[in-house]
Amino acid sequence: MFGGVTVKKVFAVIGLGRFGGSIVRTLAQEGMEVLAIDADEDRVNEFAKIASHAIVGDTTDENVLKSIGISNFDHVIVAIGENIQASILTTLMLKELGVDHVTVKAQNDYHEKVLRKIGADTVVHPERDMGRRIAHNIVSNNILDYLELSEDHSIVEIVASEKMSGKSIFDLNIRARYGLNIVAIKRGTNINVSPQAHDAINAGDILIVVGADTDISRFERKLCGV
Amino acid sequence: MFGGVTVKKVFAVIGLGRFGGSIVRTLAQEGMEVLAIDADEDRVNEFAKIASHAIVGDTTDENVLKSIGISNFDHVIVAIGENIQASILTTLMLKELGVDHVTVKAQNDYHEKVLRKIGADTVVHPERDMGRRIAHNIVSNNILDYLELSEDHSIVEIVASEKMSGKSIFDLNIRARYGLNIVAIKRGTNINVSPQAHDAINAGDILIVVGADTDISRFERKLCGV
Ligand SMILES: Nc1ncnc2c1ncn2[C@@H]1O[C@H](COP(=O)(O)OP(=O)(O)OP(=O)(O)O)[C@@H](O)[C@H]1O
Ligand SMILES: Nc1ncnc2c1ncn2[C@@H]1O[C@H](COP(=O)(O)OP(=O)(O)OP(=O)(O)O)[C@@H](O)[C@H]1O
Ligand SMILES: [Ca+2]
Ligand SMILES: [Ca+2]
Ligand SMILES: [Ca+2]
Ligand SMILES: [Ca+2]
Repeated sequence: MFGGVTVKKVFAVIGLGRFGGSIVRTLAQEGMEVLAIDADEDRVNEFAKIASHAIVGDTTDENVLKSIGISNFDHVIVAIGENIQASILTTLMLKELGVDHVTVKAQNDYHEKVLRKIGADTVVHPERDMGRRIAHNIVSNNILDYLELSEDHSIVEIVASEKMSGKSIFDLNIRARYGLNIVAIKRGTNINVSPQAHDAINAGDILIVVGADTDISRFERKLCGV
Repeated sequence: MFGGVTVKKVFAVIGLGRFGGSIVRTLAQEGMEVLAIDADEDRVNEFAKIASHAIVGDTTDENVLKSIGISNFDHVIVAIGENIQASILTTLMLKELGVDHVTVKAQNDYHEKVLRKIGADTVVHPERDMGRRIAHNIVSNNILDYLELSEDHSIVEIVASEKMSGKSIFDLNIRARYGLNIVAIKRGTNINVSPQAHDAINAGDILIVVGADTDISRFERKLCGV
């Protein structure tokens, strides 16, 4: 089933809640073959036209996994939520049946620990991570989004304030004064990914800035007036 | 209560699931004043030592919101999940009671539509967004993380392949050939946020690259051998 001799990777997603469902949709949109599985028939019906295949099944039953031919899948994502026992049992069997890569959603740190012990390859905490992300955005009003590069370096999107308006990158002397680099500037739908020293900044522009977190905070305090 | 004449913003989080709980923890870590509210006493007890205050209450009861003095809060986050009706009713009353900024977690697009109509300032979909993010990471094996700058531009973390090893940014001629800029290079715990043309790349280095999504895909295909 499902691809046969092709070299394209095949995916399965177990648990079609908001998280698992979003993974199925995105994989399908990217043209991937994805099998969607849930114990709840209504959920499965919702994905009948989205996934390559969608089937009803309780994945804590080893026979269900075997009849699907689960060991032919390259990567299985376990997105079972509340039922931690079902998540652990499913993961255990997937690894025993030889699935190469198993990604599992964890409810808490204890759950993660058990999952790692039984061989889960990747453990994710979607609600926790997104909670952190949103809290960071809430705290610093001028930072719209960010990518954490390391413990103490990030790339952030900062809204340019009135204080910066009309000045160029050269005028603001951001590299020398703050140790930061502006890597892109967004203005409306337009985006400049090679900003030059003499490019002018308008209030409301979104600056994409890379550097140390302490330098970014200093820059934000000085130039965004927070 | 809670700050009095201070100018520091005060926050409240309603619903202490994984998402709401993570917001409380992060705000508290960042030194913010945050009130944690849940109808479930066990959840509230968990946050007694983390939040500035933690109280048991059903926020669909207007008297509960009034007795908390909710209109004194600058930003309230509604992280109620399954119970869509409670989420909508709570949001409606928060805006009627004059809370300046209300951020609400939505379960689906329909829920979001209703929330926006009744005045929610920010609507978030943590599971959906994280599902997309993880699915993108799964599809492109060499892309570790990314920040979406616009519909068609991103910043991505790409693992340098053997093909790039020993070459410099100048040798690879990335800007001219792909229209991309390397904005930082990670090597172990070391991070270089001002890479120069003659800096050499090793296999396994993580390149932080900015540009158009189509150019990033082209670069990944050509140089990462996927
Ligand atoms: N043993 C099982 N076999 C197959 N599917 C299961 C099993 N146990 C739970 N599920 C399915 O997993 C899905 C996700 O579970 P649940 O709704 O508890 O998670 P959640 O973390 O609240 O989800 P969300 O991603 O929406 O936050 C549900 O649709 C449920 O039917
Ligand atoms: N009317 C209400 N007043 C106060 N708290 C409520 C109310 N309704 C629900 N809650 C609380 O909201 C919290 C989150 O709800 P729920 O667990 O359904 O969300 P979820 O989306 O599954 O959470 P998670 O963030 O873990 O994915 C629960 O702790 C619940 O007790
Ligand atoms: Ca959830
Ligand atoms: Ca913000
Ligand atoms: Ca849930
Ligand atoms: Ca990846």
